[in-house]
Amino acid sequence: MELRKKIRIGVIGGSSPDKESRQHAFRVGQMIAEKGAILVCGGLSGVMEAASRGAKEAGGFTIGILPGNSLDDANISIDIPVATGMGYSRNSLVAMNSDAIIAINGQYGTLSEIAYGCIYGKKVIGLGTWDIKGVIQVKSPEQAVDEALKDSFPLTS
Amino acid sequence: MELRKKIRIGVIGGSSPDKESRQHAFRVGQMIAEKGAILVCGGLSGVMEAASRGAKEAGGFTIGILPGNSLDDANISIDIPVATGMGYSRNSLVAMNSDAIIAINGQYGTLSEIAYGCIYGKKVIGLGTWDIKGVIQVKSPEQAVDEALKDSFPLTS
Amino acid sequence: MELRKKIRIGVIGGSSPDKESRQHAFRVGQMIAEKGAILVCGGLSGVMEAASRGAKEAGGFTIGILPGNSLDDANISIDIPVATGMGYSRNSLVAMNSDAIIAINGQYGTLSEIAYGCIYGKKVIGLGTWDIKGVIQVKSPEQAVDEALKDSFPLTS
Amino acid sequence: MELRKKIRIGVIGGSSPDKESRQHAFRVGQMIAEKGAILVCGGLSGVMEAASRGAKEAGGFTIGILPGNSLDDANISIDIPVATGMGYSRNSLVAMNSDAIIAINGQYGTLSEIAYGCIYGKKVIGLGTWDIKGVIQVKSPEQAVDEALKDSFPLTS
Repeated sequence: MELRKKIRIGVIGGSSPDKESRQHAFRVGQMIAEKGAILVCGGLSGVMEAASRGAKEAGGFTIGILPGNSLDDANISIDIPVATGMGYSRNSLVAMNSDAIIAINGQYGTLSEIAYGCIYGKKVIGLGTWDIKGVIQVKSPEQAVDEALKDSFPLTS
Repeated sequence: MELRKKIRIGVIGGSSPDKESRQHAFRVGQMIAEKGAILVCGGLSGVMEAASRGAKEAGGFTIGILPGNSLDDANISIDIPVATGMGYSRNSLVAMNSDAIIAINGQYGTLSEIAYGCIYGKKVIGLGTWDIKGVIQVKSPEQAVDEALKDSFPLTS
Repeated sequence: MELRKKIRIGVIGGSSPDKESRQHAFRVGQMIAEKGAILVCGGLSGVMEAASRGAKEAGGFTIGILPGNSLDDANISIDIPVATGMGYSRNSLVAMNSDAIIAINGQYGTLSEIAYGCIYGKKVIGLGTWDIKGVIQVKSPEQAVDEALKDSFPLTS
Repeated sequence: MELRKKIRIGVIGGSSPDKESRQHAFRVGQMIAEKGAILVCGGLSGVMEAASRGAKEAGGFTIGILPGNSLDDANISIDIPVATGMGYSRNSLVAMNSDAIIAINGQYGTLSEIAYGCIYGKKVIGLGTWDIKGVIQVKSPEQAVDEALKDSFPLTS
């Protein structure tokens, strides 16, 4: 399938997650790749890094939307870093560029991305993260990816 | 006191608030003006409009940071509309331009602004809004403005 | 006249202008204030600083749209600093928030703002700056401000 | 070579180019692909579309940084559309995400991107476009791509 037709799953979460969250992020990344979807994230460390690494180890494709000006800021598992130079305002773009979003752990940056996911009408799934009305809370990486892919439709042209 | 030295209080909230929230917003705006602070908001309707109107009726000063390209989008109680053309990504700028933030009612847009307030280290006060860790929940407009102004320091030069 | 109904003249130019350009910027700022218009600029040094200072010394009003996160970055003649955290991408917002634009001296940042002025359909006047098709080149600060104010219409509501 | 290590050449230009400019854009896109570089553009029509199509027909890879909120806005030769929702302010990001830039034809949008290329210290090559100091003017698509790739260094990690 063409790259542009693939579903994009955003994975958002903190830059300093606990060990379990990191493992969840890695597994979520793996499964996104196994299912043939693209992983979108903020391109930096923590949950973003673990999920990107999981996706790459499973042969997937990753996009990292960075707060800074330099592509070099991206973690090494990002295929396509995108520099924005917008600082935290780029959180809006992470949500905008995802068909569905999985939030793992995370602090206020993650909360802003959950909010943007809801603003933009994207399905938002939570795994050990903020308990926000409208977010589908799940118990495992498998459930998270299943929920994210259910009813997600990529570009048709 | 010079305008640039005044404390700026952001007032965030939904565009379709219930009647009580609208009254709270109006009263918050009034009190911000009475205390000599500047009101910052998203410049549009609902809580933003009611708070701006309250501030203007009390002789205050208002800044509206707009999502669109046109200054004409601002409600008529905005002294200084600022166009951003960034859509919802401008929510980040509302928080960035406030010394402290009062959230009233609101949906996901408000949630994103609460999150940005916390990201940027601003004091965030909640009045009938999202129950988020780190947000100081109060019961009345008076308490909200008192909390917002306590320990807020404007520009020193 | 209400602040929001006043015409806004953007003054753009380099941060390290030669002495004549600095004098021109100061005089342009003065005249903008004398004519009752608001000065909009990037809020920093050089042409921006000189024009803001001219406007303030003549009793005018100034808005500075800043690249960084901190209002403290604004030069001391800015009444309303607006932080964007967008770096040079904020150049677009300087043009967007002006009814007409006067470019003085300047390098590539100024060129980007001239371009945005033209993109947004604003009248752009040049005083010792880039020679770009569509920019009205003038010889003096007086001519620049006269041109900028001719046919400029502020908000009507 | 890994995708993230490839050089990125931005191709900028008008949405309504004359026939020769469109042919130049197509050829530039082809050569970028043949040389193993990634094409970055604004993702829409005209020069952007012709260059993207050229790159895809030659087996290349294309990124389109869009002004709007929807990935569907991208022309069909874009592999990775990136939505920004920033309108024309996204022009800054097109330049930021390129190692070198080729400008073909174009109006004020192109001028803003040339300016940003220079602001960000990127090599900017002109082919029938604005005559701006610092832009290397060339006569053919071949020269343009040769200049763009000379001394361009991608990510090293």
